[in-house]
Amino acid sequence: MSPLSADSQLGVARTVKALRARVDAWRSSGQSVGFVPTMGALHDGHLSLVRMAARLSDRTVASIFVNPTQFAPHEDFSSYPRNEAQDLEKLQSSGCHLAYAPPPEQMYPPGFQTSIKVEAVSQGLCGESRPHFFGGVATVVCKLLNQVRPTVAVFGEKDFQQLLVIKRMVRDLDMPVEIVGAPIVREADGLAMSSRNAYLSTDERATAGKLNKIISSMADRLSEGADASDVLNDGRMALESAGVSRVDYLEIRSETDLTPVLYGPIDPAIPARVFIAAIVGKTRLIDNWPVRRA
Amino acid sequence: MSPLSADSQLGVARTVKALRARVDAWRSSGQSVGFVPTMGALHDGHLSLVRMAARLSDRTVASIFVNPTQFAPHEDFSSYPRNEAQDLEKLQSSGCHLAYAPPPEQMYPPGFQTSIKVEAVSQGLCGESRPHFFGGVATVVCKLLNQVRPTVAVFGEKDFQQLLVIKRMVRDLDMPVEIVGAPIVREADGLAMSSRNAYLSTDERATAGKLNKIISSMADRLSEGADASDVLNDGRMALESAGVSRVDYLEIRSETDLTPVLYGPIDPAIPARVFIAAIVGKTRLIDNWPVRRA
Repeated sequence: MSPLSADSQLGVARTVKALRARVDAWRSSGQSVGFVPTMGALHDGHLSLVRMAARLSDRTVASIFVNPTQFAPHEDFSSYPRNEAQDLEKLQSSGCHLAYAPPPEQMYPPGFQTSIKVEAVSQGLCGESRPHFFGGVATVVCKLLNQVRPTVAVFGEKDFQQLLVIKRMVRDLDMPVEIVGAPIVREADGLAMSSRNAYLSTDERATAGKLNKIISSMADRLSEGADASDVLNDGRMALESAGVSRVDYLEIRSETDLTPVLYGPIDPAIPARVFIAAIVGKTRLIDNWPVRRA
Repeated sequence: MSPLSADSQLGVARTVKALRARVDAWRSSGQSVGFVPTMGALHDGHLSLVRMAARLSDRTVASIFVNPTQFAPHEDFSSYPRNEAQDLEKLQSSGCHLAYAPPPEQMYPPGFQTSIKVEAVSQGLCGESRPHFFGGVATVVCKLLNQVRPTVAVFGEKDFQQLLVIKRMVRDLDMPVEIVGAPIVREADGLAMSSRNAYLSTDERATAGKLNKIISSMADRLSEGADASDVLNDGRMALESAGVSRVDYLEIRSETDLTPVLYGPIDPAIPARVFIAAIVGKTRLIDNWPVRRA
């Protein structure tokens, strides 16, 4: 928690210039800066990241920017939920000092033509069905980190592959920031919090609540030494019975470099996770669960 | 010139950690930092960049790193001239405070997988015959800028397309550094200084000395209103007569975004340059010349 929380009025910056004026003043007075990038539509998952950033640094900045370059034309960019007034209230009450909410032309001025690719960890999982996704994410996060220049930036483990892509990019490009992953925040029935949960009907919401139970019991069996291919087969059948419209992927992969585990018992030396992306109704949901190590 | 030049012993850093220890100390005492990235084999062209960086900032860092990722397999990476002892002496006598000479594994550790692409300005000219070149350059320069974190970085106008690629990358990724271009330094007969000039035989050196005269007289005719296609045709014939082995390209392009000018008189509102890459013997030489505006 910041010792400076008396000065608790949330500022809002809409340009890089206004953002840097605030952040540079903090930095030059020796204060550390924590940063949480978001696409708005904030829920308790985001706010847990803001609170973690506030614990790790003197000042906390959160960005709200629905990044067009990480959506494919058929995806939900235009319908993605937006409610800035509510988001700002939530940030204020979570200990955030500055919201950065740039208009698209501030991020992508005419002539913009630079992109960042993080090769291996962008492949498979969400990189398979959303081939432009991680390029768009890496590029916009690089920009945001350069705009804010935080000491530390916090990303949720719900988007676990994204967290690995960002960590790899920051290491590979020698960006002077520490990247921290924060645990998934879940609803009462274990559904991973997501802005897209708002799309679900009552029936779909019931189905969605089963995903986390299926992957957590898969992780339990793997930690007890079960064969990965058996666990994957049983998991797929369980998803079908649960009423999932389509399974985009259900995989077991190394937590460090996403090497897939296809069969045999898990190597206890290698930290692994079960990863899922499933379509419920028309909504694509993702989640992941660590395999507990003996 | 730095007011601190009494402390003029050149330091050498070989790791990011050692580099940052020096540079962070300067920065935290309020000193500005100028940076010149090089591949070594330093000549007066490089040293003019170092002197410009020293004029623009309190402390000057030059890097020496022959970047493997910007050479194609058939190019001269392994034979590229290297002479670190001489380079360090030259840097010392040019007002440089710190040489950064990392080994390759410091720049590209195992698992490295990130690349940066600057789309439009990387196309044509050198991007045509060296398709991986600007990706390699953009990525390594991004790394170096993040490692050094200078206030200002100086690049030579000899590699004019590279200068535009770096300027565009820095603007697009919001990197907190000012990029400055410095004029080409030439030999007595006008040949643009280049580490690759060392490859030339006596006869080839004579031919090489004619390139700048051909493109400067092309630029003169363009500034007098001549038709671009006529000027280009005459230029190509002049290069043939001069004994050039092969012309990689001879083009007139906008100085701001490299839009080609193929015919007609130059629009005086648009700053333009004549660009050349030619093979003399087996050595590829590049040069460029601004069209003087009325």
